[in-house]
Order: sequence, then structure tokens, then C-alpha cells
Amino acid sequence: MIHKDLPFSQGEYQRRLTKTRAAMDKAGIDVLFVTDPSNQNWLTGYDGWSFYVHQGVLIFPDDDPIWWGRRQDANGGVRTVWMDDDRVQGYADHFVQSTVRHPMQDLAQRLRNMGRATGRIGVEMDNYYFSAKAFAVMQAELGDATFVDATALVNWQRAVKSDEELACIRKAAAISEKIIDGLLERVEPGVPKNQITAEIFRDGIRGVDGAWGDYPAIVPLLPSGSDAAAPHLTWNGREFQKGEATFFEISGCYRRYHAPFCRTLFLGKPGDTILRAEAALTEGLEAGLEAARAGNRACDIANALAAPLERAGIERGARCGYPIGLSYPPDWGERTISLRAEDETVLEPGMTFHFMPGLWMDDWGLEITESILITEDGPAHTFCNRPRKMFVKD
Amino acid sequence: MIHKDLPFSQGEYQRRLTKTRAAMDKAGIDVLFVTDPSNQNWLTGYDGWSFYVHQGVLIFPDDDPIWWGRRQDANGGVRTVWMDDDRVQGYADHFVQSTVRHPMQDLAQRLRNMGRATGRIGVEMDNYYFSAKAFAVMQAELGDATFVDATALVNWQRAVKSDEELACIRKAAAISEKIIDGLLERVEPGVPKNQITAEIFRDGIRGVDGAWGDYPAIVPLLPSGSDAAAPHLTWNGREFQKGEATFFEISGCYRRYHAPFCRTLFLGKPGDTILRAEAALTEGLEAGLEAARAGNRACDIANALAAPLERAGIERGARCGYPIGLSYPPDWGERTISLRAEDETVLEPGMTFHFMPGLWMDDWGLEITESILITEDGPAHTFCNRPRKMFVKD
Repeated sequence: MIHKDLPFSQGEYQRRLTKTRAAMDKAGIDVLFVTDPSNQNWLTGYDGWSFYVHQGVLIFPDDDPIWWGRRQDANGGVRTVWMDDDRVQGYADHFVQSTVRHPMQDLAQRLRNMGRATGRIGVEMDNYYFSAKAFAVMQAELGDATFVDATALVNWQRAVKSDEELACIRKAAAISEKIIDGLLERVEPGVPKNQITAEIFRDGIRGVDGAWGDYPAIVPLLPSGSDAAAPHLTWNGREFQKGEATFFEISGCYRRYHAPFCRTLFLGKPGDTILRAEAALTEGLEAGLEAARAGNRACDIANALAAPLERAGIERGARCGYPIGLSYPPDWGERTISLRAEDETVLEPGMTFHFMPGLWMDDWGLEITESILITEDGPAHTFCNRPRKMFVKD
Repeated sequence: MIHKDLPFSQGEYQRRLTKTRAAMDKAGIDVLFVTDPSNQNWLTGYDGWSFYVHQGVLIFPDDDPIWWGRRQDANGGVRTVWMDDDRVQGYADHFVQSTVRHPMQDLAQRLRNMGRATGRIGVEMDNYYFSAKAFAVMQAELGDATFVDATALVNWQRAVKSDEELACIRKAAAISEKIIDGLLERVEPGVPKNQITAEIFRDGIRGVDGAWGDYPAIVPLLPSGSDAAAPHLTWNGREFQKGEATFFEISGCYRRYHAPFCRTLFLGKPGDTILRAEAALTEGLEAGLEAARAGNRACDIANALAAPLERAGIERGARCGYPIGLSYPPDWGERTISLRAEDETVLEPGMTFHFMPGLWMDDWGLEITESILITEDGPAHTFCNRPRKMFVKD
């Protein structure tokens, strides 16, 4: 007897399926093939580190989804999806990383057998793990089908979170706070960076009362000094040094939901340049939170942030945030809305973002960020509750 | 002044480039666009968690490589690659996850500007992070180019490891041993699974003397009891229970090099079925190690393993191993050779594999594995040195 431990109610999964089917209908899609692991999980509950081989979920207008993947991973499928076991289908192992066969040949055969091979098939052209080759094989195998680009179609359905989802993000946020509290306590000059990273992982995965920690979709990022100019460097074995700022970009994770959170720690006495930047950045964050209201647009947040930064002579080239929620590596963003001047998406209650105005300058960096919730009225709610500043240990 | 900390000598990077250029020449490729993060690092040293946006390395027959990616990640590029700074090129942030622009438009423009847009361009059609959309945009932008499928072309050059690479794998293996020793000590009935996982990460990232730990390309896998039928389930907050076997699939990681290693722990008194399977599996492992000799073929290892398993009535449907070395998520395999009956690749000294004959049965699982090195003569060398058995705590 298999024990299932689904994180959400059946009503929640039906809500997601109904929304997705409406979007399919609007796009004229008969069958949707979902390869993004986050979308697979959101729709079916599938959870496993098997996205390194070809797999996906088929969504139909008129029948339950099918999870399809490597045969050995079908064992994980029947343990994690809400559908009946016969909606979990596996392909033979000789398709795996073969030089002569491709798993999409198996998928195409299944679609033909179901009589679903001649309609309009939606594929996530620019979502993760849908390779150029996978699409080429589908095209070659399914000559009577019409392919529709369904990039981010499911991701857009995820933008507004349900109460069940928000409860997960709140637990992730409690873990994020614990991680930041721990590292602010532990980091000192002379401590090797990997030792701090080890404790970040330990704190995150031990979790907090009532919430065991899962792996975040991005590993901790903690570059120091001049290296903090580069936002995505990971750690090494060097020691923290006096006179350097280090930003810590981390996220707790609960049932694959994230609440990314960054704080910067300066060891020693910070100079005027970074102090002025800190003042402008915190002013910009406050202004952005005020602008992050239902009915306003994504760009309003970005523009509110930009004003005090520009007054301080700081020009940011990058967007200042993205939606967050359920994610798998390599990204904890949802890849739909971007908080930037050109994005006029209207903000709705229940949307969640990582408001992330990192400053990556020529030879230093500063990150102070918040994961936020758009509420019914008033400014955005922050999921974490810690002083919005650069911390200093002198 | 930027401090570079390249893990390998310039001679080592030149060796890799020379091999890759020879393979390009053989395949008739004028320019190779490398998107697989492992291949990018192997060729240039690039290291950062930025592979969630489009990026890659261009390899030419007659000039140094170019690393190309998001502008903010060019800051990480100049800090981690061996090439001169002008060989690191960034695209504007408005290309990132845009609904109206695509980063491949920027890459195409650069190829046109270099006069490299009309030849035979190799692309990694089925490597990670080269999306169907990325290829479609390249085809649309570069109408005068001929595209050549270069899937795994670079991966194949990585199969035989240099001494510098083997030194990294040995350090990763020392970390793997430390992780397994720690969890065998700590796991007891009643201990929550995520608490053990937290210590696995801590041990792995703290590393061992002289080797700080990096993040492995796959998170620890540790399903118990019936769930061990599913090879790729991750952890949860449930407690270990008496009467259950749990396999632990982990890897230490040093400078992105891996030495995957699995052991199984039974809490309580194991039954006859799993004991018989253990005996057959260890006999198969010994036979496989004996067959893993230079001059033999990949299938010889698989066939040697299969014989004692078949005598015990165990039929494995899956391949029993793959090459290992430098990797990024989502996979620590190299995706070239597979240890299975149909793969006749001849084994060469310096090849490294995860010899991984996991047993995933209907309602239980067992993993005892070794990371191995093909030597000049004699059977394979194992990187880790721990009893090759199922551990039991009664």
C-alpha cells in the first residue's frame, strides 16, 4: 500500500486544472505538454529529482492529466501525484540518454494511440528542460499535429496564490528568517565561507517548528567585497575579511515554495559610498512597497524604486523583481512578470514577488530585498520581518 | 583588481580546447555554441549559478572562446574564466525573460558582426538549457547558417580524465566517505529524515582537510521502505522506522567534480528477500569491477553484473552506470556512455564512472554503488573505500 502525502487539497488541484484548461481553450490548444518541473508539480503534485531525463505532464480538456517519464520514475509518480495510478506512464530505460533512440518517440506513440496526435499540441518552447532536440523529434514524429508555443502558459496561471499556497510561502519565510538570523550571528572575519554555507543549508533543511525544510531552487549566493559585483557567484573556502561587504541571497523552501530573502553584512567600518547607497536603497524599497498595491502596475514598483536611487547617482540596469512560489532548480522565479519600467502587468491581490533591487556595481555589491504579497488594499505585505538595512559588525 | 582562482592550469584548459577543436573539425563545425553549464566550465572555467537565463560559450577554430551571457553575469565571467576580459560579453537586461525579445537575437547579432553567421554552427540540441525556442530564434535570425547537431560533442571529450581532474575527484570522494560515515552513525529509528539531510549537506559543504565542499549537481536521495522503489524521491519530515531499508545516494563535490556514492542502511532485522538481493548485488559489483578494465567494453561491466543478479531472479530494467566528473544541476552524469548491454564503447584508462546498479523493486529498494576509475591494467579502482554491503542497525 502506497502512502501519499499530497501537500494540497483535491479542490486546490482542480482549481489549477480548471484555470489551465481555460487558458488552453483561449489559446486553441487541444493537448498541452508540460515539461517545466514547477508546472508539473503545480498541476499534478509530481515531486522528484528526475528532471534530468525527459519527462512531462499531458493536460487534456476532457480527461485527467497523464504524468509521463522514465519507467523507474513512474514509481515516484504513483507516490506523489493525485491522479489514479493508470495516469502515470513510463518509457523503457533504453530511451535514456541513448545515441540512437529518443524518449519523445515513446511520447509520440502514446499520443497516436490515444488519438491525440493530429490536433493542436501546446509545448513550452522556452521553459526549462524542453530541449531543441525534444521538439525536433516531436515535429518529425507527429507530422499531422500543429504545434503551439505555450511558453509560460501554466506559469501565468500560477501568478495569484491561493490561501493554501500562501500558507506554504509563510512557512518558507519563517525558514528564511532563521537562516539570516543564523548567519548574521556566525559570520566573523577569519571564518571560511563554506563553513557558513554549511550552516545555512543545515538551518534551512532542519526548518522551523511545523515545517521541515526542502532544497531551494537556487543555492545560497554570498559573494564578498569586489566579488559582490557579480550576482551569481557561489561560495568557496576563503575566509571572510574585515573591510568587506557580503550579501547573502538565500531562501527557505517548504513543499517546494520559496520566500527568497537577502541581507548584506559589512565587517568593519563601512565607507561613505556604500552607506549612501544603503540609504538610497532602503528609501527605494519603502517607496516600492508603497507602490506595490492591487490596481497598480509592475512598472510602478520599479519606477518608485528608481527615483531615490537616481537621486543618489545609482543607475540599475536590471529588473528589480519577479514572481515567486513553487519552484525547482535552476530558478525560484516564475518567469512571467518582471518588475521593470516596460512591464505594465496590473497587480492583483494574492500575487507574490521577490522585490529584489540588487546593486551590483563595478567593485562592490549590496542586496537588501523582500518577498512580498500584494494585498486587497494598502501597500505590500512582507513575508519576512527583519530590519531593512545593511548589518554592520565592527 | 580582480582575483582569479582558476582550479586548473592553463595547459589543462588548452588540452581541452585542442581536443574540442579536433572534434569540431571532424564534425565540420565552424563555430560551436556550448550551452551545457558543465561544458562551459570545462572549457573556460566559468562558474556561477546563472544558467537559469540563456548563456553559453562560443568556440572557434582560430581564436579564444567567448563567454556570452546576461550583462550582470559578465561580472562573474571575468572573475572565473581564463580568457581575457574582452572575451566575456554580456547582453542587456531587457532580454531577460522578456515576452517580446529573446537573448538569442543578441547572440545572432554578435555572430553577424564577427562575420561568423554564414558557416556551419554546432548547437547542443539535447544538452541542458538549450531550449526549443532558443534554437527556433537562432534559425530565424541566422538564415544563412547551417546548423549541426553537436549534442554531447564536448561531453565526449571529457570522458578520459587528466591527472588534475582525478585529483579533484579524489577530494570529492573523501567528502563522499565523510558524508556516508556521518549518516551511518546518526540514523536511528525516530530521527526525522530532514534532520539527517541537514547533516549530509553540512558535512558535504564543510568538506575535508584541504577541500572545501561545493554543491552537488543532485541533492541527496534517501527514500525508505516502500518508497525506496522510487529512485529519485527526495526527503521529507517523516521519521526513520524500524523494519525499513533506506538507501542514501549522495556525492561530495570539489570544484564541481563529483564522486557519487551509495550505501543502504537497514534498521532492524532484514528479511531473507533483501539479504539474498544484497548477496547477489555485491557479487555482481565484484564481477563488474573485475570486468571494468581498459580494452573491455561498457557492456562487459553490465553483463558481468547481470549474471549473479539473474541467478537470484532479479531483473534490472535500467542501465547500471554512467560517466562522472564535472557537473552542474540537474545531473552529475556526463550523458555519453551508458553501462548497459547495448553500449560497446571501449574502456580507456582515465575514464571514470558511477557504477550504479540500484535495485528498485515493487515495494523496496537497495543501492550499493561505487565511483570507479579505469586503470592502465587490472580491475577498476574505487574512489571511495568503505565496506561494500548493506549496513544493519538492529
